[in-house]
Amino acid sequence: MSVHFRKLALIGIGLIGSSIALAARRQGLVDTISIATRRPETLEEARELGLGDSYTLDAAEAVQGADLVILCAPVGAYEGIARAIAPALPSGAILSDVGSVKAHVVKVVGPHVPAGVSFVPGHPIAGTEHSGPSAGFPELFANRWCVLTPVEGTDPVQTEKLAAFWRAMGSKVETMDAAHHDMVLAITSHIPHLIAYNIVGTVADLETATKSEVIKFSASGFRDFTRIAASDPVMWRDIFLTNRDAVLEMLGRFSEDLSALQRHVRTGDGAALEAMFTRTRAIRRSIIDAGQETAAPDFGRPHDTPPEPEPVPLVREHGGGDDA
Amino acid sequence: MSVHFRKLALIGIGLIGSSIALAARRQGLVDTISIATRRPETLEEARELGLGDSYTLDAAEAVQGADLVILCAPVGAYEGIARAIAPALPSGAILSDVGSVKAHVVKVVGPHVPAGVSFVPGHPIAGTEHSGPSAGFPELFANRWCVLTPVEGTDPVQTEKLAAFWRAMGSKVETMDAAHHDMVLAITSHIPHLIAYNIVGTVADLETATKSEVIKFSASGFRDFTRIAASDPVMWRDIFLTNRDAVLEMLGRFSEDLSALQRHVRTGDGAALEAMFTRTRAIRRSIIDAGQETAAPDFGRPHDTPPEPEPVPLVREHGGGDDA
Repeated sequence: MSVHFRKLALIGIGLIGSSIALAARRQGLVDTISIATRRPETLEEARELGLGDSYTLDAAEAVQGADLVILCAPVGAYEGIARAIAPALPSGAILSDVGSVKAHVVKVVGPHVPAGVSFVPGHPIAGTEHSGPSAGFPELFANRWCVLTPVEGTDPVQTEKLAAFWRAMGSKVETMDAAHHDMVLAITSHIPHLIAYNIVGTVADLETATKSEVIKFSASGFRDFTRIAASDPVMWRDIFLTNRDAVLEMLGRFSEDLSALQRHVRTGDGAALEAMFTRTRAIRRSIIDAGQETAAPDFGRPHDTPPEPEPVPLVREHGGGDDA
Repeated sequence: MSVHFRKLALIGIGLIGSSIALAARRQGLVDTISIATRRPETLEEARELGLGDSYTLDAAEAVQGADLVILCAPVGAYEGIARAIAPALPSGAILSDVGSVKAHVVKVVGPHVPAGVSFVPGHPIAGTEHSGPSAGFPELFANRWCVLTPVEGTDPVQTEKLAAFWRAMGSKVETMDAAHHDMVLAITSHIPHLIAYNIVGTVADLETATKSEVIKFSASGFRDFTRIAASDPVMWRDIFLTNRDAVLEMLGRFSEDLSALQRHVRTGDGAALEAMFTRTRAIRRSIIDAGQETAAPDFGRPHDTPPEPEPVPLVREHGGGDDA
């Protein structure tokens, strides 16, 4: 018995929404897909990509007759969307989302969910630094985790049906409390992004001459941070506005640890530095072993081909001495 | 006219040393390669890999008759190596290195360099998170920058010969003052690594249950930091011990900026956050345009294949209702 929905409504059609459309279609999980988004240009782009079966600027229209509705718009837009679609959500439907914060989503969407609709917020922990409908691809969720945070009182059969949907697209699924999700994600994602944004910002403030050198020499570590700092600005604005407390808590810990590290540098404590760097190396091994990262060196980045060796002349054109 | 050396002596044979051996051989830049390293096991490994033509535990023996000597050992070992090889360095030879700091190298090696030997410290800005003789590959330097910091009074013909050697292995070459190198590298490399080590350390200190969740959900940003924090602990210990002042200066700037960002989060200043994240996105574009990074999404990481779609049964086994 495989999971199946008659009509999937996607409200928002960026990287995640378009990837869901492609993966759900490929795996045969839905009969029909309706797509709604706010901007006409985006809707046209989705139409040209053939991501859905129907397209509309009206979210309430999109959810008519849907048995699965997934909010894929910026979290900052959720409250307005929830208010608009509430009267049109069919009884028995599952309402979910893909936002990177969960307690806030429960708080702003929950009050609008009609009785008879199962509200199961979700967060697929997957993505690239690209945005928009053309960025999506069906393999995005394969072997990645999806966290579901069903609200209290939700029918477990509905939660399991949504879990099966995500598994069929390749994800592993875990269910947890929304506040716990937000704390773990503050550590694994929100603080790393804040730090990356900060380093890149510190560099952006340098004098132009130094900045161009930094860009030239960025293969030495800096460029890995720039990928994270190239993420969607609106999405990240909303994350820091809505997961404030957990972010500030983890930022405090990070800053305490950084002061301690600074002291080791200032006092020249080589033993403490080496011990710290050895300990952290093991964490990466755990991540590779947990299947969450490639073991290929340098992330598996492609490497350039070196130049062809210059041919050695058979006859010396000038007498004596080495070639310069 | 192509660059050529009769005998290249590599003192140390880790990722960089082994990559030089492979690239120089492939490009036909040297007649013979002698390899010296401190530990017998490492020397055996280099021998088994066929990286050189002669192998010895004695650095002074390795440099006999060499016209190019490159120190590829940890920077912390340089002073002892310089003292040992000084009496054996042939007049007319070029002495260089690959260390990630340059002012310190000039300070501790410089006094031992005999008259008649050209001292041209160098730093190829390339690497992966792996270490040791088996980690090397000839394409490592292709399209990467190599910075040379010749000491005052060095024969420019010798500096240019070394530059040509690096270009023949695929690098772009730039020459600059040692102190300026150290400041730029503090920003592009040393601080990013310190920050990455710190985040990973903060995570390593979490309670075991939370830590295993962090590892599970690491695809959300954290894992990109763990690659940087998997770098060679000894190399990094030496970098922070020897580039202390520039590191502390840049760390100060980073911390000031982080406090400002923290305030935007605390006060919920969405406009300031979004503006910051938009500005930093442009930096990545510059790095890609400068040819220092792949434009492929997610660094070009390979993606998993999603599961095969489940076949739809032709005959319903049970009457009515959807499949769960």
